[in-house]
Amino acid sequence: MAVRDEVAVIGVGCTRFGERFEDSWADLAASAVFEALGDAEMTSEEVDAAWLGSFKPWLAGERNAGTPLADALSLMYMPITLVSNICATGLDAFRNACFAVRAGAYDTVLAVGVEKMRDVESRSLSRANRDEGHPFYGKGRTAPGFFAMCANRYLKTYGVDREMLAKVAVKNHKNGMTNPRAHLRREVTIEQVMGAPLVAHPLGVLDCTPTSDGAAAALVTTRERAESMGKDYVLVKGMGLAVGSERNVFDADFDYLGFQPTREAASQAYAEAGIREPRTEISMAEVHDCFTITEILNYEDLGFCGRGEGWKLVDKGTTNIDGDLPVNMDGGLKAFGHPIGASGLRMIHEIVLQLRGKAGARQVSSPRYGLAHTLGGPGALAAVVILGN
Amino acid sequence: MAVRDEVAVIGVGCTRFGERFEDSWADLAASAVFEALGDAEMTSEEVDAAWLGSFKPWLAGERNAGTPLADALSLMYMPITLVSNICATGLDAFRNACFAVRAGAYDTVLAVGVEKMRDVESRSLSRANRDEGHPFYGKGRTAPGFFAMCANRYLKTYGVDREMLAKVAVKNHKNGMTNPRAHLRREVTIEQVMGAPLVAHPLGVLDCTPTSDGAAAALVTTRERAESMGKDYVLVKGMGLAVGSERNVFDADFDYLGFQPTREAASQAYAEAGIREPRTEISMAEVHDCFTITEILNYEDLGFCGRGEGWKLVDKGTTNIDGDLPVNMDGGLKAFGHPIGASGLRMIHEIVLQLRGKAGARQVSSPRYGLAHTLGGPGALAAVVILGN
Repeated sequence: MAVRDEVAVIGVGCTRFGERFEDSWADLAASAVFEALGDAEMTSEEVDAAWLGSFKPWLAGERNAGTPLADALSLMYMPITLVSNICATGLDAFRNACFAVRAGAYDTVLAVGVEKMRDVESRSLSRANRDEGHPFYGKGRTAPGFFAMCANRYLKTYGVDREMLAKVAVKNHKNGMTNPRAHLRREVTIEQVMGAPLVAHPLGVLDCTPTSDGAAAALVTTRERAESMGKDYVLVKGMGLAVGSERNVFDADFDYLGFQPTREAASQAYAEAGIREPRTEISMAEVHDCFTITEILNYEDLGFCGRGEGWKLVDKGTTNIDGDLPVNMDGGLKAFGHPIGASGLRMIHEIVLQLRGKAGARQVSSPRYGLAHTLGGPGALAAVVILGN
Repeated sequence: MAVRDEVAVIGVGCTRFGERFEDSWADLAASAVFEALGDAEMTSEEVDAAWLGSFKPWLAGERNAGTPLADALSLMYMPITLVSNICATGLDAFRNACFAVRAGAYDTVLAVGVEKMRDVESRSLSRANRDEGHPFYGKGRTAPGFFAMCANRYLKTYGVDREMLAKVAVKNHKNGMTNPRAHLRREVTIEQVMGAPLVAHPLGVLDCTPTSDGAAAALVTTRERAESMGKDYVLVKGMGLAVGSERNVFDADFDYLGFQPTREAASQAYAEAGIREPRTEISMAEVHDCFTITEILNYEDLGFCGRGEGWKLVDKGTTNIDGDLPVNMDGGLKAFGHPIGASGLRMIHEIVLQLRGKAGARQVSSPRYGLAHTLGGPGALAAVVILGN
């Protein structure tokens, strides 16, 4: 019950994701922050501390420290912590910002996620993984290759057709159409997804998230202060982070049908938020759909349905914008894009807009709890944040 | 007043620093953690979350995330955040751990700092700085070259003899003699320091910290819990972090005579701790003596004396173990060594031993407040933590 109902988000910002060759890392970070400040009707001088989430800032020629954010904002001598945790980077930056506010250390703090991935050749990330001694990617294995094994195992185990994967892409691309900031803003059909060039069978190129540039930010303060300042705020209800090893996916008992870190992080967040039946209590979610199969596995790991039933949620339209439990309303990683450090805060941005009732064409009706989820490693760690009114 | 007197350190551990070719990154991290657990008489199962401070874990073939610590400790699915902030990495990991405890998110948490720097060729760090687009080091400039400019400016401005720099090395090497974990464990004379091969005039090789492998750890809980469990605890009194830009040292008004981030971080920590006169109220300090000149500049920036008077503290023996304000009792970066992410937590380790009265041959008499300080960038950021009984 550490943070629940005591910490509030009072401002959010998010850049357009995609190939942002015209903007530097600093431009993107500053754009997201200034939008969040404008949203909260505050100035940068009112920010007391910041948490910067960036997984590999040096791919954009920035230092692996808090200093690039000080540069980007021209704010000198503020406390700025760099947090790095693979794809959970953005939500973990947000989590640490919330702890500091709850600790009473600062009035208003900033969580910023940013990654610029398109300026370098694709193999730069592979090379960095090799240099890091990554036990999986470092040996030339790839994310599509790994999630393709999950997909094959899933389709075979539960007797599901590959078309169900395609339906995830169709849904998320359709959602992305309502979102002018999405990287891939075009609808796709089941036939297009299934007929797209294969990356690793059964995953085609339209089953995969793009590689993107982008940034997102959130301003966090105490509930009390948000109230007294009359801000349009959203409350933090629960948070979880579960970190394992990249070697876990080699464990003899790993079944390729889901990820323990997601289950553990969700369990922490549900306990704090007092949520017992996620499938009925969670109103909407932004989950880590790095590949179409991942979204289906996430449904199951997050408790939105039973094991082997995830595909039914997408088949029946349960997770459509107008379904009982909309997922990836803003297009998700699939259509919005995936600048690694930014993704978690991009999800916070969307959940806050939705809970305020200001998500426009993609507004979910009367949401109560919104969940954000990121998974990385592959499958080594996960973070979950639940927001609500 | 966020954390002051509410958060307690109940266990500390620190490996021998130096050329640890026989031990891996994971061996070092685990050694420091298990020593801290033994010190607190706890098991790893009692740890609820961790903050890992490591500046460039990939130089040791480890990932830039929380996962290497999960591997090292064989602890799966605990929340582990990687914090990276140049030389302030260790103290910033500690700071975030304290916030989470104060927020009530966890009972007992771990802050671990680790860096393994000797397994790779020296230019690996320079190459990494280049890849990061570092505005100073990335252009082939070096830390000794930069601090040599500070030294020349200092000696000329205040009419001080180079011998005063040597006295810092003599003091810290002497302190290191009492410390079996120090990297450079031998006394040096003023003549040896001044006669040592020059690195960048006026800094010789004995004016410089070595490059080291090592790890250090601290266990943190609430004061209440530390008391009720009957632990030999030390209280957190104040913390500060000030992050600027690596470009600051090119500013037209930069005078090479001290560092604004240290002044800002100290001011934050003093305010929280309620310290008005550091020169009389601080009993002892571990400061960032990456070069002999830096220790003298730190004295001034931390308010231990007036501007231009730092050299007098070492000349008069004020900062000797038996002086009024002992500094770098364990040998400091100069003799203990400087595994970047570990240094801040190595300082916490020493301050805790001293405040408990268990520092053996180097025990300071009746200390009340101990200060830890790290500076990095060069001169771009600084962290300060004050502990007390």
